[in-house]
Formats: sequence, structure tokens, C-alpha cells
Amino acid sequence: VSAPKTVAVIGLGMIGGSVARGLADKGVEVLGYDTNDSYLDAAVDSGVISRRLQSNFDDIGNAEAVVIAIYGDAAVQALESLKQHNERVRLITDVGSTKRTIVASADKVGLGNCFVGSHPFAGDHRSGWHASRSDLFENEIVYLSPTSQSTESAMEAAKSLWMRLGARPVRMDAAEHDALLAWTSHLPHIVSASIALALAERGIGRRQLGRGGKDMARLSGGSPDLWTAIALENASEIDAALDAVERELSGFRLMLRQRDRNGVREQLTRARNWHEHAEG
Amino acid sequence: VSAPKTVAVIGLGMIGGSVARGLADKGVEVLGYDTNDSYLDAAVDSGVISRRLQSNFDDIGNAEAVVIAIYGDAAVQALESLKQHNERVRLITDVGSTKRTIVASADKVGLGNCFVGSHPFAGDHRSGWHASRSDLFENEIVYLSPTSQSTESAMEAAKSLWMRLGARPVRMDAAEHDALLAWTSHLPHIVSASIALALAERGIGRRQLGRGGKDMARLSGGSPDLWTAIALENASEIDAALDAVERELSGFRLMLRQRDRNGVREQLTRARNWHEHAEG
Repeated sequence: VSAPKTVAVIGLGMIGGSVARGLADKGVEVLGYDTNDSYLDAAVDSGVISRRLQSNFDDIGNAEAVVIAIYGDAAVQALESLKQHNERVRLITDVGSTKRTIVASADKVGLGNCFVGSHPFAGDHRSGWHASRSDLFENEIVYLSPTSQSTESAMEAAKSLWMRLGARPVRMDAAEHDALLAWTSHLPHIVSASIALALAERGIGRRQLGRGGKDMARLSGGSPDLWTAIALENASEIDAALDAVERELSGFRLMLRQRDRNGVREQLTRARNWHEHAEG
Repeated sequence: VSAPKTVAVIGLGMIGGSVARGLADKGVEVLGYDTNDSYLDAAVDSGVISRRLQSNFDDIGNAEAVVIAIYGDAAVQALESLKQHNERVRLITDVGSTKRTIVASADKVGLGNCFVGSHPFAGDHRSGWHASRSDLFENEIVYLSPTSQSTESAMEAAKSLWMRLGARPVRMDAAEHDALLAWTSHLPHIVSASIALALAERGIGRRQLGRGGKDMARLSGGSPDLWTAIALENASEIDAALDAVERELSGFRLMLRQRDRNGVREQLTRARNWHEHAEG
């Protein structure tokens, strides 16, 4: 199965912009849309986008694949607009951090056959076209979550699209994905925000942190809108993860109050062993 | 005031090794000691250490400054051994992450005049001579905490020693230092370990994390012995910091349970504002 020759990218922020740049670098024709004209202008000026799309996506023409790189309700609305192209495109996918809602929505609007949910596990706290780069997905995992009706052709197109961008596809059911990412992505983000809030209340600025502390606080710089949408959508899975970290913290606090040196050392050793073990 | 021409470095791990390398690079004669012969051999072989010291430090000879780069009780014992050199050296300092105990110990053993506590706020979770490098302190803060009797000559020698290594000296009372570092260093470390423990219990390995999660988990790889000593020594200050983060986490958890979208967005916005504000 060959990778798509023409791809429409809806949303040219850090993720969508990086998809567009990466594909353009590989000789793929990229059509683009963004509500932010300055992103679209920059993408056209840099030669990444060969044609601007209308806001109703009527004019995706011969695009074989569509990448929805906007989030939450806007992504679901884009699915609605794309319904008419169901027979023509091989693949419609997205880039969101949660997969249950978008995958269910694709099924519901009748795009179940050509839709495969994608979550490229890449990027950082920044956002916008200026934060995009063509090698963002190089060697990074991309989770692919099929609908109940995704065709093999759609799944193969999704795989080859992301492999073209250097990513490593991992197929995972949407519910399983969201349960896992609550721990591996959403938990770290909320913990980082909690550290930021605690330091803010104490009147300590980011420049007073060392390298390690800065690393811990970095995710707090992420987009509040994006992360609010993610947190609310995955609230029930995140609950268990937050609870687990709270219990570990309160365990440390109790041991420190009791001056339980052996207990502290044992827990720090378990944590270090996890770190070392998973490194190899 | 000129920087010392001959310096004795006791302990050649990541921090002590980096002090030795950095000074040797600047033409300073470095005498060295470590209980680990392989570190000492490597330091001599690489030309960083010009002479090995005996374990009682009787032979520091004309060294004008001594840097104690070992931790906890061992550092206090080194102070005892160095008492005899009180009149000869301009500066005895250390590199520990907490300052109250070592500064009080220096006063107690009668080295208050020539001792200034140092805490170079640099390094990462690794340890040992192989992790040392000559530019580790470049542009990093080093806290300097005087005893009740530190001479101006000792303070000036400490400043010039660290500036020679590219660090930025910040004078801070030992108690104030320990209270601040509970938030900026010890808190991040324990939170990172708590994330590691929660993930370990859930059966999730480090390789399943994204870049952000890996950053959050990195500090958990630090030395359990070193961090147990730090945590216990600064337990009372760390308590308040852990409590503050627990409260933020449990606040997020409650808002998520109540599907309080505005509350979550407000907190994430406050966190992001802290991040942005402190960046400039």
C-alpha cells in the first residue's frame, strides 16, 4: 500500500503544522486550513501548503487522506463537514490525546469505515505554527485506534502516513489508549501544573528552580484550553492515577514525619529500580 | 582576591569530580581523595588530580582551599579530620544540598572562621566520576551559606572558586537556603519518585512515557542514599511543600469528579501564567 500523494491537514498548530511540514518534505502535496490566517499565510509562504482549503472543506478535491489537527468539539464538527467525502477519501484521521470520543463520533456520523484515530505521542508544552517542525514525529510512538468499522485500507493508509513521518505506529483500542494515557501523559501534566501552583502560592519563580525542578514544571506551560478538554474527557481514568500519586506523596510525608529513614530509602530505591529497569 | 592556586577535593563523584575537572582546566593544582579507588585512578590517569591524598588528609600541604564533596555524616567526619589545618587554609567548603547541619558542624568543630557552606545547584540524577564534567557549573547558581564566624577572606575565596568554575554565587543564610530548597529541589525529587512508584504499581514502564512524562520521572533515578539523607535532614521543611502539592492534586481530582470545566481551566491557566511569567 502506497502512502497518500495528496493530504489535507486541518489545523496548522504545532502538531498539524509538523504533519504538513513533514509530508511536504517527503514530496507529498499538502492542502491546508486554519482559522488563524497568520498560520495559513506562513504555511503557504514557506511552501509547505500548496493550496488553502475553504472552511467547509468542500474543496479537498483529490486528497486521499485528511488529518484533523484541531481538538475537542471542533474536531467533531470537522467530522460532520467531511461526511460528504466518505466515498472519496481512503483515510480520515485526527491527532488528539484522547481517542474514545472522536472514534465514537466517527462511527456515529457514518465515517467509521475510513476513520482511524491517531495520537502521535510527541510535542511539548508549546503550541502554534511557529512551534512546528518536520521531524517532530521521528522515532516517536503514534497510537492508532480503529473505529468499529475501520477498513484495512484505512488502517494501512494511517500506518504508512505516520511511518512516512518517521513515527512508530502502535495499534491500540480507544478505551485502552485512554486508560493508559491517563497515566503516561495526563497524570504528568496535572502533577506538573500542581507543582507550578504550589510554587506560585509560595512566591517562588521558575528561575529559582534547578534543572530537575524546571523539567518537573515544564508541562505546566501547556495550553489551558487543550488540557482542560483532555482532562475533562478522560476524567474518570485520570482520577485513579491522581489518587495513586497522592497516596505515594502522603506516604513519603508520613515517613518523613516519623523520621523513618529505612522506609524513605526503601521507597526511593523502588523508584530508582523502576527508573533503571525501564531504561534498558 | 585571587582564586586558590592549589585545591584539595575530597570525593570525586559527579559533583566533586566536576569541581576537580573544572579547576584543573583552569590551571589550578588539584589534590584528590576518594574511598573508591577506581574514581581516584581515573582522575589521576586523566591528569585532573596531580596528587592522591591520604584518608586522614594530613597531607593537604599547601592547598589553600578544601572542597568536601561527600555527604551526610561522612562530610561531618571530614570536618573533624580537617580541624588541624584551621590556621593554614583560607577556605573549607562543601557541596551538599542542605546547609544547616554542615554549617552548624563547622562552627562546632572550630572551623567556623574558614568554613563557608556551598551548594552548587547543578547536576542531574546520575552519580560517580564518569558523570562528572568540567562545565557542569557553567551559569548555574551556587548558594553560599556562611557560619556564624566565616571570615570575609573565606567568603571571597568561596566566591572566586565557584566563579572560576563559571557558577553564579548567591549568598544565603543556611536556614533560608534549606527552606527554599525544600520547594525548588527536594519537592520535585519526591514528586518524581512518587510518579515512578505509582507507574511501577500500575505496571507501566518508562519507555511507555512521552517526552513530558520522561522529564517528570527522570529525578526518580537519583541515588536513594543521597536523597534519603537530604529528605531526612530537611524533613520539616519538605513537609509543607509536599502538603501543598497534595492539596493541588486533590483539588484537581475533586474538580474532575464534579466535571468542573471552568475550575480546571482556571487552575491550568494560573499554572501556565506562573510558567510564562517566570520565563522572561
